[in-house]
Amino acid sequence: MNGGGQPASKQSMRRHNLALVLRQVAASESASRATVAARVGLTKATVSSLVEELRLAGLVIEHVPENQGRVGRPGGALALNPRGAAGVGVEVNVDYTAVCVADLTGAPRVRLTERADNRGRGAEETLHSAGRLAARACAAARRAGLAPVQVTLGVPGLVHDDRVLHAPNLDWRHVPAGDLLVRGLGRQRLAVSVDNEANLAAIGEFQARPPGAGASFLYVSGEIGIGAGLMVDGELFRGGGFAGEIGHVTVIPDGPECGCGARGCLERYAGQDALLEAAALDSVSATRLGSAPAVTATATRTGGGPGRHALQEAPTEGSAPVERLAALAAEGDDAAVRALAVAGRALGVALSGAVNLLDPPEVVIGGIYARLAPWLIPSLQVQLHERVTSGRWRSDRLRVSGLGTEAAVRGAAGAGVQAILRDPSAYIDLTSPVL
Amino acid sequence: MNGGGQPASKQSMRRHNLALVLRQVAASESASRATVAARVGLTKATVSSLVEELRLAGLVIEHVPENQGRVGRPGGALALNPRGAAGVGVEVNVDYTAVCVADLTGAPRVRLTERADNRGRGAEETLHSAGRLAARACAAARRAGLAPVQVTLGVPGLVHDDRVLHAPNLDWRHVPAGDLLVRGLGRQRLAVSVDNEANLAAIGEFQARPPGAGASFLYVSGEIGIGAGLMVDGELFRGGGFAGEIGHVTVIPDGPECGCGARGCLERYAGQDALLEAAALDSVSATRLGSAPAVTATATRTGGGPGRHALQEAPTEGSAPVERLAALAAEGDDAAVRALAVAGRALGVALSGAVNLLDPPEVVIGGIYARLAPWLIPSLQVQLHERVTSGRWRSDRLRVSGLGTEAAVRGAAGAGVQAILRDPSAYIDLTSPVL
Repeated sequence: MNGGGQPASKQSMRRHNLALVLRQVAASESASRATVAARVGLTKATVSSLVEELRLAGLVIEHVPENQGRVGRPGGALALNPRGAAGVGVEVNVDYTAVCVADLTGAPRVRLTERADNRGRGAEETLHSAGRLAARACAAARRAGLAPVQVTLGVPGLVHDDRVLHAPNLDWRHVPAGDLLVRGLGRQRLAVSVDNEANLAAIGEFQARPPGAGASFLYVSGEIGIGAGLMVDGELFRGGGFAGEIGHVTVIPDGPECGCGARGCLERYAGQDALLEAAALDSVSATRLGSAPAVTATATRTGGGPGRHALQEAPTEGSAPVERLAALAAEGDDAAVRALAVAGRALGVALSGAVNLLDPPEVVIGGIYARLAPWLIPSLQVQLHERVTSGRWRSDRLRVSGLGTEAAVRGAAGAGVQAILRDPSAYIDLTSPVL
Repeated sequence: MNGGGQPASKQSMRRHNLALVLRQVAASESASRATVAARVGLTKATVSSLVEELRLAGLVIEHVPENQGRVGRPGGALALNPRGAAGVGVEVNVDYTAVCVADLTGAPRVRLTERADNRGRGAEETLHSAGRLAARACAAARRAGLAPVQVTLGVPGLVHDDRVLHAPNLDWRHVPAGDLLVRGLGRQRLAVSVDNEANLAAIGEFQARPPGAGASFLYVSGEIGIGAGLMVDGELFRGGGFAGEIGHVTVIPDGPECGCGARGCLERYAGQDALLEAAALDSVSATRLGSAPAVTATATRTGGGPGRHALQEAPTEGSAPVERLAALAAEGDDAAVRALAVAGRALGVALSGAVNLLDPPEVVIGGIYARLAPWLIPSLQVQLHERVTSGRWRSDRLRVSGLGTEAAVRGAAGAGVQAILRDPSAYIDLTSPVL
């Protein structure tokens, strides 16, 4: 996006302006070519030719009122095409695998979830099974008129070049995750990339925000592990490639030993296993599912005209032990309430450090923390107010994600969509011989 | 720099390309117009006209070999003009005030330092005095052929809109620092801006890096307070405006009370006062200087041809109590060595958290930590190796700043210079009526 190192040539102008127009279409409600031209500051003729290119590539549709009838009239309402290119997200986590297919508007159109103890069955079997689930989702998406283009796999670990270097909670080391997933996908022609689960969850959270909501926030994802994603003006901050490991920020230097080898890490106080243990509940490994994993499916057909489509939202389903913890806390169970207060305090210590260091306009807690927020937030806010310098903390800077544990898989699906929206010329150049 | 939201027009192309050519001149050793054209990917004719514009504005010089004689020949070696626009940095810290004037190449040309207990004499007197010191430095710079354009003031506190909201170690609250400095400057026509001292130190550290060194690092500045600056691809990360307060990251949640109101902050273990106290040495307030502040001055004249100029480097002078601490540690004094090991451990806990969260390719310790590095680093490295996840820490990711306590004032001087290099068209449009 930042052409700082490139000269401005005609070709880079076309690329820049195609993206500019497509982003304007995405950001506007039913804008015409003329409106888009006025908003982006280009001539109507230039915008018309760019829109035509986007329309022919199947990225944009033009909705013409019934009584006019001619397709492509300059006065028609422009919108992203919800029956074109689609992104596929796959999330492999410790206790479930999830798949989501999103159309170009970012709307989730197919969702499949498989409950399984992925910690117990090894990388190869887990990824093969995840690939098969993704293949089923792609087939459903094609039946709904979509064209899956790009698969993004999210895993709770350190990822480099589509390989998982280390995913401690899955007990994976040096797993060629992209390649293994492709085998499970079968004979599908899809590009596959792999990313960290918390990074993708932050992207998912960003994409699900209402228009006008801030584009900079620190997202914290509670699962068996705890990850963070720093979103800066709508772009994920990746540091040297392994940013976001907030689960291993020290809370108490001489605290209990963590799986990572250090002591007193946040995960030891606020990770799902630590929480369940402190609340005297069984962890996921103790409530292992049977050999036939349970699959929940939701496929959604487009209804209504192009640009508008009805969606059946599947309820976000938490994992059984987290639901049990929430139920106990709601009943006022001492151990559950105490465990959540301790976790909230530890989260508050780690997050106040992150806020002092990074000053994100907002902090969003997601994953299992979304479900458990009512019991985490009081002690969390106390720490933030006490520890963020100069009393600059305001309670409304802390938000709870509306996506819960779905954020990562939705973000993974949206990642491919975003790539197209950012640089439509690359997609057009790639697909134009076919059109 | 990022034109993502703007259409590419002729005017933005000129702006873009002027900056592109100027940056290429800055990055190259004696490149000709033809070489620059080849490197930036524009035609020779376009580059020649851009270079001419930069040359007329006094930003670029063209060095023609003796035996040719015609100025402006396309074959001449291009360089930034070291006798043109200059940036002025002013740093007001707890125990000193410093001024630096840098030419367009970033080279410091005038430096003045005044030792004073700024904690004791109030914001108005301190800033008036700093303004007078800056006026003296500007006069010396003009005598050396420079044209000071922009003053940047650095303070150890939270800054917003050229006002200091809170500088706890100076005991300032809501100080209109920019305005107060201007009064001390007298009848100088200079733009003044204010920034956080650690932010500017990170910029100074970046500007002083040898070509080829990484442009992404976390800089940690030890002074009475501790600040950090996260440099990402050569740009300072500012978050919501108050990023970098690493001194108030929690090291031990139930630790000793900090001036900020929280407990167990890094500053309570590794700030200058905490260090001196732990080593049983007097802090700066106890070694207060007399009423006549000591001033150290270094003015450097340009020698040699344009593009090359000799510089007399003034030795970096640490504060007396820090020098005493270093001397004691060098002698093996128990209390001094122990205090530094404790500080190094606390720094290691806070920095490993920052590394887990942000994964900066490098961490650079500066300010007083540069002088004290030999005794801080061993315990600091132990913590980093132990706490950075998955054993990804490598000792060579930790560097010691070569600038010591000079980084902030050098960065402040360079900030104005960088603004010109980034957008020369703004400078040209501003100054062209005069030329």
